[in-house]
Amino acid sequence: MKFCSECGCKVIAVVPDGDNRMRQVCTACGTIHYQNPKMVTGTIPVWQDKVLLCRRAIQPRRGLWTLPAGFMENCESTQEGALRETLEEANARVQVEQLYTTFNLPLISQVYLLFRARLQDLDFHPGSESLEVALFGEEEIPWEELAFPVVRETLKLFFEDRRCGSYVHRVGDIYWESRRSGEYRVVMLGDES
Amino acid sequence: MKFCSECGCKVIAVVPDGDNRMRQVCTACGTIHYQNPKMVTGTIPVWQDKVLLCRRAIQPRRGLWTLPAGFMENCESTQEGALRETLEEANARVQVEQLYTTFNLPLISQVYLLFRARLQDLDFHPGSESLEVALFGEEEIPWEELAFPVVRETLKLFFEDRRCGSYVHRVGDIYWESRRSGEYRVVMLGDES
Repeated sequence: MKFCSECGCKVIAVVPDGDNRMRQVCTACGTIHYQNPKMVTGTIPVWQDKVLLCRRAIQPRRGLWTLPAGFMENCESTQEGALRETLEEANARVQVEQLYTTFNLPLISQVYLLFRARLQDLDFHPGSESLEVALFGEEEIPWEELAFPVVRETLKLFFEDRRCGSYVHRVGDIYWESRRSGEYRVVMLGDES
Repeated sequence: MKFCSECGCKVIAVVPDGDNRMRQVCTACGTIHYQNPKMVTGTIPVWQDKVLLCRRAIQPRRGLWTLPAGFMENCESTQEGALRETLEEANARVQVEQLYTTFNLPLISQVYLLFRARLQDLDFHPGSESLEVALFGEEEIPWEELAFPVVRETLKLFFEDRRCGSYVHRVGDIYWESRRSGEYRVVMLGDES
């Protein structure tokens, strides 16, 4: 951010009175421009013992597989966002069951909220952001070709819980050890105690 | 938003190519300015059978009681945000246990994430945004003087679950029937099926 979105004048980074963080503040009208994390909402669409994945047609991670998910829009709920993204990316209709994972990605200021969902029919096909959409059993998941750590970790938990016969909502944090190598570290809330 | 935060020129509301929503787009440099919901994170700080509440020193709802919570900052996790807000508003140290409620407020594009937390000691006092901080047993909760529906609904669920001996994470939506009267409607995910 270089200019004030209210008056068009230059902004500077300062710590406003009564605050303890640097903010972008307008040099003319004084508006403080707060920046906040974004939510990404999506689903784990399930049909019998299989999970629906989408192969990405766009960057980042074009060509790799992901769960249908995307940035939440204003004036919708997390569930509505998850349904919308599933429809947009896979043309798939689902019934949302429950929130399954809440994953923090503090380094990029994103929070993922992924819901377990029941696929309503097999009439799905790729949306404009997907190259391919397909159902995978646990043994068929392309673990080495998953687009994002959050997808990998959510699917691992999902199949573990499915074997135990009960799904528990979980909160976790993902930190990259090295962005180049893709190595990352996962801290699940509750595991440390 | 009236001006581009990248170049300072005027923005107009249009539906960009390949999109299906109105966005603020710069008339000069073409930057699309997406607007997304904000997260509010906080805690339900518990000491023995009591819950800590803060009486608000600021608008909106000055003078009414709330759980310590506030806007999540960039580069922190939801739990870190919840801890920070509890420290800022109540000077209280807590250990976060688990995420308890995720409440959508679609009309104001906010999502609340409230964590159950264990108060570490009784050395708490009001921060600059609080007039008063105190512990309340279930019978002492000032139900008619709670600041926000999300606080009321979370506390109701919390005491119900406590009687049952187990806490279940829940997702709900809050819609105002009338902002003037404060009447609202709650839809819990899963209740409709």
